[in-house]
Amino acid sequence: MKIIVVGGTGTIGKAVVKELSPRHEIITVGHKHGDVQADITNEASIKQLFEKIGKFDALIATTGDVKFGPLAELTAEHYRIGLDNKLMGQVNLVLHGLNTINDSGSFTLTSGILSHDPIRFGSSASMVNAALEGFVIGAAIEMPRNIRINCISPTVLAESMADYADYFRGFEPILASRVALAYSKSVEGAQTGKIYKVE
Amino acid sequence: MKIIVVGGTGTIGKAVVKELSPRHEIITVGHKHGDVQADITNEASIKQLFEKIGKFDALIATTGDVKFGPLAELTAEHYRIGLDNKLMGQVNLVLHGLNTINDSGSFTLTSGILSHDPIRFGSSASMVNAALEGFVIGAAIEMPRNIRINCISPTVLAESMADYADYFRGFEPILASRVALAYSKSVEGAQTGKIYKVE
Repeated sequence: MKIIVVGGTGTIGKAVVKELSPRHEIITVGHKHGDVQADITNEASIKQLFEKIGKFDALIATTGDVKFGPLAELTAEHYRIGLDNKLMGQVNLVLHGLNTINDSGSFTLTSGILSHDPIRFGSSASMVNAALEGFVIGAAIEMPRNIRINCISPTVLAESMADYADYFRGFEPILASRVALAYSKSVEGAQTGKIYKVE
Repeated sequence: MKIIVVGGTGTIGKAVVKELSPRHEIITVGHKHGDVQADITNEASIKQLFEKIGKFDALIATTGDVKFGPLAELTAEHYRIGLDNKLMGQVNLVLHGLNTINDSGSFTLTSGILSHDPIRFGSSASMVNAALEGFVIGAAIEMPRNIRINCISPTVLAESMADYADYFRGFEPILASRVALAYSKSVEGAQTGKIYKVE
């Protein structure tokens, strides 16, 4: 399969590429790195991305920013960051990718454990992650041409604990290589409309 | 209690007012009707709303637009309608209402069954309803001064079936008066961070 990994230069993305590259042709997409560059907050950039790449079989998105901060200090503009970036960035990859994805292709998006297991400072991430999961179950039942869509919802990564341990006390960190298996299941399996929790 | 019902002139809102008005002081808020007018897509209008009303004990939001349509025809702009209106409209009521709500007060937002039980044409509603539920569980654990926040997730209303029956085949419609009980439980009970499904 020809598989696009948007965010393929990040921690999860690299693990996904390592898992899938022995069996598939991988095109990594980053904001500044990767095989192709794109800005997922810019629809014109997303359209150009798909024009450059042409037909493909699977798109994996492991990317997106969200603002963390105390509820008392977050404004609508802070919530807007996650909505424009992690949520609509991934959703726009689906909406525009639908034009050039092959029949029976798949989209695999990335939410996160905070959708259902919140932490302090994480209300925007809980919102955005839950929104992604809602979109995926809603979009799955309307996908044309046997195209599938799933969402991976990982807990905190062992590789990220140096930065995030204070926020995720009591959460069991897992290796990105384990999270990558869920992307393999989504792309190489046959299910659709699933939220794969990797916790 | 002094209770603000934003959307108090809609189908659910009217049932909520009927349920709570025998025991509480109710202020209904609508875009064009109600005791006070406000545009929930406009933060300045929301700030003015709270300046007009002053201190209060509970805010209930039963309002918000979302665009329905086939996935293949929905653009980012269509998804933006639900994000700006139903999602951030309700979230901004919380963010700004926190300044004037009394200690031990409560916020009760409204999502909907499509967050977890999708229908054709409903991918934006699934996204927005799930986002509201994610926000509520995330915000609940950071609320100051014993303030609570919950979300009501109703199925389709019997009163709306004349318009929506074709979209909700197989869903069991329920009366708005039954949905209103969940708002009573949220406001007059003691739980927080709950998603009350009324199905």
